[in-house]
Amino acid sequence: MASLTCPLALQRYHQVLLAHGGGGRLMHQLIQEMFLATFQPEPAWQHDAASLTVQGDRLAFTTDSYVVTPLFFPGGDIGSLAVHGTVNDLAMAGAKPCYLSLSLILEEGLPIDTLWRVVQSIQAAAERAQVRIVTGDTKGVDRGKGDGLFINTSGIGILEHDTWIGPSAVQPGDQILVSGDVGRHGIAILSAREGLAFETAIESDSAPVADRVQALLSQVPIHCLRDLTRGGLASALNEIALAAEVSMDLASGQIPVQAEVQGACELLGLDPLYVANEGRFVAFVPASAADTALACLRQSHASAQVIGTVVKRGSAQVTLQSSTGSRRILDLLSGEQLPRIC
Amino acid sequence: MASLTCPLALQRYHQVLLAHGGGGRLMHQLIQEMFLATFQPEPAWQHDAASLTVQGDRLAFTTDSYVVTPLFFPGGDIGSLAVHGTVNDLAMAGAKPCYLSLSLILEEGLPIDTLWRVVQSIQAAAERAQVRIVTGDTKGVDRGKGDGLFINTSGIGILEHDTWIGPSAVQPGDQILVSGDVGRHGIAILSAREGLAFETAIESDSAPVADRVQALLSQVPIHCLRDLTRGGLASALNEIALAAEVSMDLASGQIPVQAEVQGACELLGLDPLYVANEGRFVAFVPASAADTALACLRQSHASAQVIGTVVKRGSAQVTLQSSTGSRRILDLLSGEQLPRIC
Repeated sequence: MASLTCPLALQRYHQVLLAHGGGGRLMHQLIQEMFLATFQPEPAWQHDAASLTVQGDRLAFTTDSYVVTPLFFPGGDIGSLAVHGTVNDLAMAGAKPCYLSLSLILEEGLPIDTLWRVVQSIQAAAERAQVRIVTGDTKGVDRGKGDGLFINTSGIGILEHDTWIGPSAVQPGDQILVSGDVGRHGIAILSAREGLAFETAIESDSAPVADRVQALLSQVPIHCLRDLTRGGLASALNEIALAAEVSMDLASGQIPVQAEVQGACELLGLDPLYVANEGRFVAFVPASAADTALACLRQSHASAQVIGTVVKRGSAQVTLQSSTGSRRILDLLSGEQLPRIC
Repeated sequence: MASLTCPLALQRYHQVLLAHGGGGRLMHQLIQEMFLATFQPEPAWQHDAASLTVQGDRLAFTTDSYVVTPLFFPGGDIGSLAVHGTVNDLAMAGAKPCYLSLSLILEEGLPIDTLWRVVQSIQAAAERAQVRIVTGDTKGVDRGKGDGLFINTSGIGILEHDTWIGPSAVQPGDQILVSGDVGRHGIAILSAREGLAFETAIESDSAPVADRVQALLSQVPIHCLRDLTRGGLASALNEIALAAEVSMDLASGQIPVQAEVQGACELLGLDPLYVANEGRFVAFVPASAADTALACLRQSHASAQVIGTVVKRGSAQVTLQSSTGSRRILDLLSGEQLPRIC
């Protein structure tokens, strides 16, 4: 869909007023002229709830609020992120994403134009991810009680298969694959926030991954999937190790990290394995399926790799082996490395 | 369920830290020891998405963020409100509420105890409303970039009937019923916020209404339902009038308002017809069904009333007739009467 121009009726307010979330005429106008004009939902936008017909299919249902700062960053913005994040959460359950809800918390003083750009970005991302925004909500908070814009999206997806995908299906011997190079989203946010300029601009990897997951599902048995958001690769693997009660051995040299990201991390004192991503995931598959799975993942990203193996039950350690043979434990972070990256 | 005691492991932090939303150990602990301990979801809490089996039923799906201030008020709190509001939105579509998602935006510095109390209240309200919290999310924002706690709940409900309920089904001649006295929630919030003491404490009407709606649906044909939240009765009726392109005549003397609420409104210069409610709704039914519908509503609240009639197509005016015969137009508010009441 071509990007629409913001109607004059909205532009004349310049900034969001509390009344835009107040249930009166201004909110009515905002809904009519921005959300309905952009999303063009079919059937008519429901005030209270959207009615979905699902014909006996199993569903997945997820929710995420987005508080990323700044609102716009290299490779994305809070709007596209709010679609990708929730769609990817559905994909990680093995579901085909179908419907999203959208709830906005607007701070008094947010420029209308900023909101407009974000809403356009939401719609573009929804079209790309082949999901529909079917119900919504807008709230306003006074100046100083928010941070411009927070977004919640919740999603419903359909599970078209009977495979149980989750940590409990992980087996010793499973190969661990990553769908592409890691660490870009967090570094893109940090560079935008701190005004850092690197030689090459580092763009967020923010993107929907459901298509790739559906392709993977059709080709190989998948034991577990997890997207690499807050806390990065290391946290995702630790969470799975804890839930599945298994240990994992990773080969440090196999983990794909862009040279620019590696350089920025060294400069900033960050470990790229803990830096957030928004379009990357890990897949756990039986060893016999690893080659097929890798070939499938590489159709999206040539940097996809087999990075390690599930080794045993009864402990939950994630170990990283360097090319020189030294080993270190990759632990869960106890604090917060980069706040508000999603 | 008995209210649990907050585990010491959580209490020792006193306040929410950014790390509680950071994907590391503290967040892991918060999820394990507060949310899982309280909600005890079955099957296991899903990291990415909950899988729901719905056996071919039609669904309703809705979302709402809650930014009410203060977090606790006479008759409720942000947690119970976040359940009632979303469950009631599902009920207004004629759906039986089933599943809720829960997403929290926590400001750094929010006392852990406050969060705990709210989470308990959420679970108690969910049990009362017979819905289950099946998936969740937690985000943190830095001090000064939020207001303690914002909540989003999204909901899925099942539509067990084929009746189309909505403004387009409204007909001239329809009777307009209100499910109980109006204006209490907004006045309860305002009195808590401003430290006003009235002779009698005015409690919010915040409550789930789905049971009453299901009872109504089983007894009479319903054309339209709408809960009376932001903007109150007047705004809800105006929205329906606009959407249905019908006019409505209301009898001022029939609209139930508690004497205390009326008094407080006079003192504060507010019109109770514009003040928010959280457990009240209007129902549009054929004139022949009005008596049955009223009897059904009065099983919950003796103050339920028939308050007016849909008079004609082609305009969208809501007119209020006083007991002395004078008429005034009840318009949509152009601004914000009471911000952050939900």
